[in-house]
Amino acid sequence: MIHAKVHVTLKPDVMDPQGLAVKNALESLDYKTVSRVSIGKYFLVDFDSSDREAVEADLEKMCKQLLSNPVIENYRYQLEDGTQ
Amino acid sequence: MIHAKVHVTLKPDVMDPQGLAVKNALESLDYKTVSRVSIGKYFLVDFDSSDREAVEADLEKMCKQLLSNPVIENYRYQLEDGTQ
Repeated sequence: MIHAKVHVTLKPDVMDPQGLAVKNALESLDYKTVSRVSIGKYFLVDFDSSDREAVEADLEKMCKQLLSNPVIENYRYQLEDGTQ
Repeated sequence: MIHAKVHVTLKPDVMDPQGLAVKNALESLDYKTVSRVSIGKYFLVDFDSSDREAVEADLEKMCKQLLSNPVIENYRYQLEDGTQ
């Protein structure tokens, strides 16, 4: 089994209204030192396979096709071998 | 400035319909080796402060109060000193 951790984040120049809303909420709760909040997605994907190359090729396609929107988002991932 | 990276994930026993939906979507796209998908949130929070202890205390409270739902979610964070 292979575990993948995928981070999907907005590209730097893309507006992040959700992040802004959380920043404003934190300000209204009196956290005055917060200067910026950006929100991304975090996927944990388990593969029933031990072929690291095939998994990485699949994951690359999955990220482009479904997990992220490559027009406005960046993605990165790490693979880990798992025992179960 | 201090940068914080916060990961919020569902506790292991909590149903994850969103993860299941993504797993099913991946299966229908012919990714047959995916055995499980779990979806979490990823926050990048910048602080205008260099007081690491104060930031960590604030972040701990923010995670409990706003960024996660401690009943069903776990959170973890890392702090990094930034130059800008």
